[in-house]
Amino acid sequence: MRRTITGFSNPTVKYLRSLREKKHRRREGKFLAEGLRLLTDARECGRLPEMLVMATGRDGHPLLAALEQAVADAGGEIVECAPEILSRITGKDNPQAVAGLFTEFDTALSALDRNSAKIWLVAQALRDPGNLGTMLRTGDAVGAGGLILIDDCVDPFSVEAVRASMGAIFTQAIAQARWEEFLPWLRAGEGQLVAASLRDSHPYRGAPYRAPCFLLVGNESRGLPEEYESACDLRVTLPMRGRADSLNAAVASAVLAYEVLAALEG
Amino acid sequence: MRRTITGFSNPTVKYLRSLREKKHRRREGKFLAEGLRLLTDARECGRLPEMLVMATGRDGHPLLAALEQAVADAGGEIVECAPEILSRITGKDNPQAVAGLFTEFDTALSALDRNSAKIWLVAQALRDPGNLGTMLRTGDAVGAGGLILIDDCVDPFSVEAVRASMGAIFTQAIAQARWEEFLPWLRAGEGQLVAASLRDSHPYRGAPYRAPCFLLVGNESRGLPEEYESACDLRVTLPMRGRADSLNAAVASAVLAYEVLAALEG
Repeated sequence: MRRTITGFSNPTVKYLRSLREKKHRRREGKFLAEGLRLLTDARECGRLPEMLVMATGRDGHPLLAALEQAVADAGGEIVECAPEILSRITGKDNPQAVAGLFTEFDTALSALDRNSAKIWLVAQALRDPGNLGTMLRTGDAVGAGGLILIDDCVDPFSVEAVRASMGAIFTQAIAQARWEEFLPWLRAGEGQLVAASLRDSHPYRGAPYRAPCFLLVGNESRGLPEEYESACDLRVTLPMRGRADSLNAAVASAVLAYEVLAALEG
Repeated sequence: MRRTITGFSNPTVKYLRSLREKKHRRREGKFLAEGLRLLTDARECGRLPEMLVMATGRDGHPLLAALEQAVADAGGEIVECAPEILSRITGKDNPQAVAGLFTEFDTALSALDRNSAKIWLVAQALRDPGNLGTMLRTGDAVGAGGLILIDDCVDPFSVEAVRASMGAIFTQAIAQARWEEFLPWLRAGEGQLVAASLRDSHPYRGAPYRAPCFLLVGNESRGLPEEYESACDLRVTLPMRGRADSLNAAVASAVLAYEVLAALEG
């Protein structure tokens, strides 16, 4: 189905715009992703938007034509509107020429296959959508299975997190759980839980990592609760040569993930 | 000198507020930093604000008292205002109870002592203040000398970059230069220039790093220009196991920096 939207007050515009707020995403189970590159990544991962929104007057592009065709073939909706309307929807002054409406994925722990990858990233109470997206992107790069979000984290389907993931939102599994659910799930199967920590810990290089390895980082300001650290199978320390005793959460996660990748595949 | 400000339209409020914009910071050569932790880091690095702005009704804290004393002893100005006015100044809904006005540092290449550290981070056309601040923080953690910003980068003295640096803005040297200035400066002394690259490169682990090692990453979207890569002494590749062929710039820089730290100190 194809149609053109000409007014800012069109109900579809209002609906799509509302998905910039978490409560509306939760109610609808939908989220927005923007940009040809991201939507092409999604398509190549077998994820098609149920609605494709394209700006009129855009430049033609073979990847856009392929995307449009795939959405049409799958019975999706194709909407055209003025760039200003797309800008209103995405909240960006210079919007990409295209955006897509997707159904949120199942984020239950039970949907994960822990043996599908050697590395899993785990974040507790992560607050920054940029950090969350960056962790998804790192997970993609190291061949992780996905990102497990513990306790109250920022929404992985927020526009900012999806954008920062650079498409990895479509390649990485995502789970959301309370610590009280996560730990029993982890202990019901194989899996080593590893935290970056300053106490009772191994140097992160040469530590005895084993797969599947779950790399846990804590909140940006407070770090991990002590009892969470204590529950880990392995605590590792990164050298800190400066005044501060911590790294950005997404950076710490990435440095550890590359170390584990080398240890398990080296 | 101590005074109390009661109105939003006070010239000092307007002046401080104006420093949220780059053009005003450039004209005045001043920047703002907020939060007791950050200002305490600054103090411990020997950097005192010339003006300390404190919210009335704040909780007492020994570190705040120490800061206030140090600023007063150094002849600085102490300003008190309502939390709402401080909020207006910093642009944050929930401002920290304290902010400081600092003079920008000298960011000329000639101010750097390249032999003062084994690692230097270098970024070209970096656009995101969060990435810039994160790189400063990583630099602090690996004991780098500082961050060299090549070509048109985001302003290191922006509120967002200062905030994301978590105080490392006061511990790391910062230089700003065009590529055409940077390369002759580098070649006029010791220094190995290393880029993350996908072509003609060594695996990043076990590559022949040597100090002082300058780790160069490129723009978030476009990466490094090819001629910049070609000018490097060493090109190294990080494993990419996923769909994408890149990492977040601050993440790539950190993974490399920790590898170089291990190589040079291991």
